Amino acid sequence: MSNQGKTTLHIGLIHHPVLNKKRETIGSAVTNLDIHDIARTAKTYGVAKYFISTPYQDQHQLVGELLQHWESGHGASYNPARKEALSIVSIAASLDDIIDTIEAEHGKAPLLVTTSAVMQDNSVSYNDLAQTIINKEPVLLLFGTAHGLAPEILKRADVSLPPIKGGTDYNHLSVRSAASIIIDRLLGS
Amino acid sequence: MSNQGKTTLHIGLIHHPVLNKKRETIGSAVTNLDIHDIARTAKTYGVAKYFISTPYQDQHQLVGELLQHWESGHGASYNPARKEALSIVSIAASLDDIIDTIEAEHGKAPLLVTTSAVMQDNSVSYNDLAQTIINKEPVLLLFGTAHGLAPEILKRADVSLPPIKGGTDYNHLSVRSAASIIIDRLLGS
Repeated sequence: MSNQGKTTLHIGLIHHPVLNKKRETIGSAVTNLDIHDIARTAKTYGVAKYFISTPYQDQHQLVGELLQHWESGHGASYNPARKEALSIVSIAASLDDIIDTIEAEHGKAPLLVTTSAVMQDNSVSYNDLAQTIINKEPVLLLFGTAHGLAPEILKRADVSLPPIKGGTDYNHLSVRSAASIIIDRLLGS
Repeated sequence: MSNQGKTTLHIGLIHHPVLNKKRETIGSAVTNLDIHDIARTAKTYGVAKYFISTPYQDQHQLVGELLQHWESGHGASYNPARKEALSIVSIAASLDDIIDTIEAEHGKAPLLVTTSAVMQDNSVSYNDLAQTIINKEPVLLLFGTAHGLAPEILKRADVSLPPIKGGTDYNHLSVRSAASIIIDRLLGS
């Protein structure tokens, strides 16, 4: 497998703590297609690692079985391209876990970047964040499942990306679509 | 429901004729999430209409039931935002069907634009196509399911968008991700 085009951008899909419809903090279930679709986009753009973060042990087992199927089970021979995309996926128990893993590899903590459908106080432009990645600084970009990242995660961020606006008042992208659009804005040519 | 931000861009998701892994022409099955995810992105960016194209009557019935659930069934009250996204979805039997519908509304045939993971001879830049939409010319942008649009569809196109490149040699985006990225490149601010 080639490392051609590999960047210092890491992404994390957070399943806890996130918000539900009523803006209460919850843990969400891991979704099969969130793993596949976002891994394929991440691999296309040279994202270094895609972390699936959940504190629940049964979810770790489920993700582990899925990855095993595609990495060394029947899926590996059936679809080698899928195996390659999923090779950048790791499971993590928490945000601190992800940060520790990146710090161990890069010798420093990553710039912690959040995404939200609401503008935050600490916003950074897509161009400025793209430049940080070009400079090879480690970056960890977080996406929230369900109705988005909980305030306790947003508060920890060094910077936050502005919400995606499409020129209408409708604002309900899937996390899969939002991740694809944001990764393209940061790493697309 | 507001028409604020509505554009002249129409999109079509083609289920026949498309290619399989061996580059044979086939018809693919409609996927629930292709409808939901792409409708949400399309609605966010003011796409005029999202056509699901398949010649199979059982698939028409399936899509009809799904739309009914979200438009007037239990889903409509459970998730009004989803209802709004799916309000721009139409089912069509063929590409000609879609073109006829757009022509009936706009008084002229749309500019027919295809997408492909391989560069075509008739390529147009994202900026030029964006300008066509700003000029309020009707545009029909086609995405292929399975392994992409069949040659007979690509040959009919007036122009084609260049493939999405992510700076690596990996090139296996889901159609959901590709559609989101391309719509953002055309209509994002």
